[in-house]
Amino acid sequence: MERVPLYPSERIDDLLTQDLKIIQSREVFSFSMDAVLLARFVTLPKKGKVMDLCTGNGVIPLLMSTRTEAHIDGVEIQERLYDMARRSVMMNQKRDQIAIHHGDAREADHQFGNGKYDVLTCNPPYLPKVGGEKNENPHIAIARHEILITLEDIVRVSCRLVRSGGKVAFVYRPSRLAELMALMKQYRIEPKRMRLVHPKKGEEANIVLLEGIRDGKPDLKVLPPLIVYQDDGEYCEEIYNIYYGKSDSLV
Amino acid sequence: MERVPLYPSERIDDLLTQDLKIIQSREVFSFSMDAVLLARFVTLPKKGKVMDLCTGNGVIPLLMSTRTEAHIDGVEIQERLYDMARRSVMMNQKRDQIAIHHGDAREADHQFGNGKYDVLTCNPPYLPKVGGEKNENPHIAIARHEILITLEDIVRVSCRLVRSGGKVAFVYRPSRLAELMALMKQYRIEPKRMRLVHPKKGEEANIVLLEGIRDGKPDLKVLPPLIVYQDDGEYCEEIYNIYYGKSDSLV
Repeated sequence: MERVPLYPSERIDDLLTQDLKIIQSREVFSFSMDAVLLARFVTLPKKGKVMDLCTGNGVIPLLMSTRTEAHIDGVEIQERLYDMARRSVMMNQKRDQIAIHHGDAREADHQFGNGKYDVLTCNPPYLPKVGGEKNENPHIAIARHEILITLEDIVRVSCRLVRSGGKVAFVYRPSRLAELMALMKQYRIEPKRMRLVHPKKGEEANIVLLEGIRDGKPDLKVLPPLIVYQDDGEYCEEIYNIYYGKSDSLV
Repeated sequence: MERVPLYPSERIDDLLTQDLKIIQSREVFSFSMDAVLLARFVTLPKKGKVMDLCTGNGVIPLLMSTRTEAHIDGVEIQERLYDMARRSVMMNQKRDQIAIHHGDAREADHQFGNGKYDVLTCNPPYLPKVGGEKNENPHIAIARHEILITLEDIVRVSCRLVRSGGKVAFVYRPSRLAELMALMKQYRIEPKRMRLVHPKKGEEANIVLLEGIRDGKPDLKVLPPLIVYQDDGEYCEEIYNIYYGKSDSLV
């Protein structure tokens, strides 16, 4: 592990996967189960190019790096988070594989070119811009609410960044799944693999993982549901294996 | 039970719900689990008007009649099936509640008026018109393939038949879920409640139940998955209760 500077509020957390560590801070952002599940759900090529839009503190590129030798770009608009992600990449000695960029995802196609990526991931803000977020920490509000980017912006740019036949994977809220599917179809990213995540047996889904193929043929597979907690309150085997480093992919 | 004429190939099957019986024939059509699940999934008002498009032998109106006092119309284009459905309604002495009509569902808004229904159900043909269906029994091919009606026709007519705030529920194949959701949004039927049906734990979904509200606000609830068979090969409790008349609604 390489030594990197830390700001006062920052701490180093263990990603529990091949000794990966990550810089986090309660002042700006901590990654959630959403990001971990997306990094373990997405179909990755052995080599090639992968883009993570709205990468935050870089948790998704770091976790994906254990599953592929592809080059991974991450784009983050918030300078503070971009800087944390960049230092986390240095700290893990992943600079040969992962590049974190400070920029606006809405313009990423101008910066990175059309059709250059084999795979794109994104954990978009899932709450609308409503005004209520004014009372929130601005770093967290930007990650959660559609303040700087909308779902449609993300789907439109994703379609431009990946090549025809390339994959685009999102983690999102089931409450907005119909909108996500309709936008994907509108921007020629055909939904192909979906997994719904339910906190417990008998409860509604609170996370959806959805992967599409640019210019793909309509044929969606709905994988078995992922039930996070067993009846005894422990993680189910799949989540346990992911969180404790025994596996780095779902299914 | 009222006596009705039967054709040579026909038999009377028990619907295992409040002594309901149904006329079926191997020559034309037998209802499947899809229809039973839809009739038990859809949200029904106590009173009002309900429409079942592409009603086949009338299984969905018959099963819904145990859950509501609403008037139920069923429309079927195939004369042979229309006639079976009509006789099943007579046989069950449900003529006061259920009316089966011989007609083209694509024109149902002209026949039944705009915005007159509180709820609409449909179990659409789920296979595209491909040509391969030429070798099939024509009655069964019409029920399975988009020969006489497409999914878009059904969603468009559904939007016209139900009032604003009315519900539209479909049973369909998950492989075409993205198309179904995009069409529902296009025709202002906002997806609101979804249930995925998996044959067994750990297997992909093979049926989706999806209910929308005309002019509804986007907010989809993904209900717990329905796993049809337990590990021991027996029906799960919910399916058992529905199939053996102990319950007439899902969830």
